Amino acid sequence: MKRFVPAWIAAYPRRHLADDLLAGVLVTILVLPQSLGYALLAGLPPQAGLYVSIFPVVAYALFGSSMVQAVGPVAITSIMTWSVLTPIAAPGSPEYIGLAAVLSLASGLLLLACGLLRLGFLSQLLSRPVIAGFVSGSAVLIVFSQLKYLFGLQPAGSDAFHVVSAMLEQTRIDANTVIGAAAIGVLGFSRLWLGRLLRGAGMGERKASFAVRLMPLLVVVAGTLAVVGGNLDRQYGVATVGHIVEGLPAFSLILPAFGDLRTLAAPILLMTLIGMVQNISMAQALAVKRRERIDANAELLGLGAANVVAAGFGGMPVGGGVSRSAVNVAAGAQTPLASIVSALAMLLVVAGAAPLFERLPLAVLAASIIVAALTMIDLRSLRQAWQYDRADGLAAACTGLGVFLLGLEAGISLGLLFSLATLVYRSSTPHIAVLGRIPDSEHFRNVERHHAETIPGVLLLRIDESLFFGNLSAVETRLTQELEKAPDTREVVLIMSAVNRVDTTAMEVLTDLNRDLRARDIRLHLAEVKGPVQDRLVQSPLWQELSGRVFLAVNDAFEAFSAARPKAG
Amino acid sequence: MKRFVPAWIAAYPRRHLADDLLAGVLVTILVLPQSLGYALLAGLPPQAGLYVSIFPVVAYALFGSSMVQAVGPVAITSIMTWSVLTPIAAPGSPEYIGLAAVLSLASGLLLLACGLLRLGFLSQLLSRPVIAGFVSGSAVLIVFSQLKYLFGLQPAGSDAFHVVSAMLEQTRIDANTVIGAAAIGVLGFSRLWLGRLLRGAGMGERKASFAVRLMPLLVVVAGTLAVVGGNLDRQYGVATVGHIVEGLPAFSLILPAFGDLRTLAAPILLMTLIGMVQNISMAQALAVKRRERIDANAELLGLGAANVVAAGFGGMPVGGGVSRSAVNVAAGAQTPLASIVSALAMLLVVAGAAPLFERLPLAVLAASIIVAALTMIDLRSLRQAWQYDRADGLAAACTGLGVFLLGLEAGISLGLLFSLATLVYRSSTPHIAVLGRIPDSEHFRNVERHHAETIPGVLLLRIDESLFFGNLSAVETRLTQELEKAPDTREVVLIMSAVNRVDTTAMEVLTDLNRDLRARDIRLHLAEVKGPVQDRLVQSPLWQELSGRVFLAVNDAFEAFSAARPKAG
Repeated sequence: MKRFVPAWIAAYPRRHLADDLLAGVLVTILVLPQSLGYALLAGLPPQAGLYVSIFPVVAYALFGSSMVQAVGPVAITSIMTWSVLTPIAAPGSPEYIGLAAVLSLASGLLLLACGLLRLGFLSQLLSRPVIAGFVSGSAVLIVFSQLKYLFGLQPAGSDAFHVVSAMLEQTRIDANTVIGAAAIGVLGFSRLWLGRLLRGAGMGERKASFAVRLMPLLVVVAGTLAVVGGNLDRQYGVATVGHIVEGLPAFSLILPAFGDLRTLAAPILLMTLIGMVQNISMAQALAVKRRERIDANAELLGLGAANVVAAGFGGMPVGGGVSRSAVNVAAGAQTPLASIVSALAMLLVVAGAAPLFERLPLAVLAASIIVAALTMIDLRSLRQAWQYDRADGLAAACTGLGVFLLGLEAGISLGLLFSLATLVYRSSTPHIAVLGRIPDSEHFRNVERHHAETIPGVLLLRIDESLFFGNLSAVETRLTQELEKAPDTREVVLIMSAVNRVDTTAMEVLTDLNRDLRARDIRLHLAEVKGPVQDRLVQSPLWQELSGRVFLAVNDAFEAFSAARPKAG
Repeated sequence: MKRFVPAWIAAYPRRHLADDLLAGVLVTILVLPQSLGYALLAGLPPQAGLYVSIFPVVAYALFGSSMVQAVGPVAITSIMTWSVLTPIAAPGSPEYIGLAAVLSLASGLLLLACGLLRLGFLSQLLSRPVIAGFVSGSAVLIVFSQLKYLFGLQPAGSDAFHVVSAMLEQTRIDANTVIGAAAIGVLGFSRLWLGRLLRGAGMGERKASFAVRLMPLLVVVAGTLAVVGGNLDRQYGVATVGHIVEGLPAFSLILPAFGDLRTLAAPILLMTLIGMVQNISMAQALAVKRRERIDANAELLGLGAANVVAAGFGGMPVGGGVSRSAVNVAAGAQTPLASIVSALAMLLVVAGAAPLFERLPLAVLAASIIVAALTMIDLRSLRQAWQYDRADGLAAACTGLGVFLLGLEAGISLGLLFSLATLVYRSSTPHIAVLGRIPDSEHFRNVERHHAETIPGVLLLRIDESLFFGNLSAVETRLTQELEKAPDTREVVLIMSAVNRVDTTAMEVLTDLNRDLRARDIRLHLAEVKGPVQDRLVQSPLWQELSGRVFLAVNDAFEAFSAARPKAG
């Protein structure tokens, strides 16, 4: 790390100060209900969501590269935490809380390592349709996970099927349902139509969008006031958030037991990957709009640092939040100072104001999470991918359905497999040509397209792509075909003028091929091997065992073989 | 499926009959101990290994394409079954046996589906170093899993750490240890030196290798005779295989509960992938040696059918076995008839001879599995990969260590991630050039390498690769750089002459780019878009929202813009 003081602090433009201060305070107030809700979604005590909105936010501000992205508790990492941990521990239990901190710590360290090793390009591992499918599937899971607060359910498991069967058997329509439905109605209305109405009434674009963002807080305040005023929790059994621990979070870092790491290894890998992809792609999108640039590796350091700090203060994984960042931008943030201000404001909240939310109805919180999750379901992207490219559409649909039916891990594994399969398929058919010499020249061309001389018993094959594990079998197949067509072949020359790299798999397959051809009394030669490729191959068994020669130019090979045998047209 | 009778039956060469009959019988006898051992390794009753050596073998013979590959219970699928199922059921319990059949059935159906959808190319998803790392890590796990039979251990868990801690606390040196050590000594000796000794004594190559393959059976027979003769099991507590159910396997197919499918989804996917890769790559290697060709999709059908049948008769996943196939080839098999003969021979064994193995000492079986597993540890490949290409070596080492330390699933997920990362890295830096016009011509060249005319405010960018999710951010980055260098740019022309495909991600990113550039008052144009690319793009939002024009030739764009502005050199 070259810099100890982030560039934005070293050259802080005084004119942004007022904007950043205001934005910081507004963000804290607006995302407060969300932070409580995501903590509950993750199966953690409500204050965890507040705690991780403090120091992790500062860590990201110091190490990240985006000017306006806001990190904190987010929907995807929260539902992943829930879905990974509920099978092995009881939500809210000390063991569960410890394991959530382990998730945070391990994924943070992995992100830091990726950042230091400059592996930012890994964020491109997933295609957009796969990401859209994953996010949409997760959103549906989130909606299902919240239904219990509206219908008084106690599902036997955390997945959609247990929730549905619990709904069929246990659904109870009571005060919670009414409050939740009302909140969903208000929030849904404001998401869909409020902005348009206000703009129609002459309100400016930015003010209108701000008013829409203010609605969840208003609904939360209204809900809490209703409970307090009407004593709804005691008289009508309205479930509320309950005890929120007051005061500053104490640092507590439980070093993970090895057994926990083993159990959580696969989820940690997948969670890190998803965090990485989501954070970098959003930071990128925000930066392009503001004509700024982000540094993918700095983003990994920022997100990694935030998660490591989160493990110690609050113990809940954090990520770059879509709505958090949107609120930050809408509130006028210009630099990460806004985030630091918001952390300080949150510190004041947990020091004193947190208990104000103890009588906030859970159904209202659930309603705001349901509405937020519904906006994450991106059917337009899925339809568009399907129309534009069937393969991409299928990948998106399978990833989404996989997440919903088989769980988050299986879903994202499917997405990875799809992305990998697409890539391998794309590159699995290298162009290969059989060459001959243009008469009275030293030029060699494809015999299928030019009238060119060949020598009986000699096969000149030009491979027009780098050789790697995904396209080797195409080369083998083509060679087998050509040898079947000309069974008297005794010399095979691979022309490597377009091969920039030969990976280990390709080298091994060529070594095997050399052995098999030798057993059939056919010699394998190489020609026009590029310098860097040759430097590697010289050390390999292929080079040491090669039955034939290495020619500098194709013409050298042609001359050598035609001297030994009669020419043919 | 075009053919109802496999080609090898329709045109069976009479002269192979004797070879195939002999090979079939020999294979059954030689792989018998192995089949029992792998069943125990998988946590299943011993007869399961015999049962799945009958009908699944016939299914593969009818649907597969390899002439000499032999399927049956194999090491990798057995240890995967063990490692996937032990956390959720007690080995040997009815629930465990049912779940193993579910693994078989689901993975068989997936393989069939992949075969019918012609997805054989998926077997190229993993690079050879990753496979070598996976197999070596699994082999170490197998060795650890067998130590309990030698040292009378009862580890609390199935992984290496529980085994090591059990060894530290519970190790008991008794008759089992002595028998196991003796068997390991004899088998290790014959693997390493017997062949050489026999050839030195003048025995032919094929006979010598056959004698080596015979040793495991001789050791098993000797061990059993020793137990029976010395009454070792009753007098010295030598643990034996115990009751083997006699008689033909009855068909029993338990349709999986949806909950089981959910739990097993990720393992099933990974097991299918591994089975696919192992089967196809071995069939390929065997075919090249015999100058035959295999059909990857037929291989998937064969392996899929074998697993579906295995689910009904025996309930244990099967795969293409390295040592099984080697025995088959060494015994002189020429066509799948050998496998059908071996299935019939195994039918006779389970009908009558199976109880002969009831007093076979477990320590001898464990010894033969340990020796077989040790030969699977491929340190040479790992060292070679490391020397040849650091990245491949690292991928192999991490996959192997991942399997050993974190378990089979996490290990193979790591391997997949490595392969994908390599691919994305390889293709993440497309060549991009800023073009200018060669004076007094219609030719356009890279301005960095040629003296070429440009128009102020106009940027001509040629992208020299297909656009997909892995290389889009490089295009964005380069464009941002160029716009920073020339902030007065108003027209950006993307020259797509080398772009053969634009995937959904690329189309979406270009759509976003078009919007962002328009917001900055810059128009985006396309030029020389290929036919198939244009056919797709016409339907996309990019085309509908494009702020600029689509030019047939770069020169058209150049003329249009230079007509509007003054020329410059």
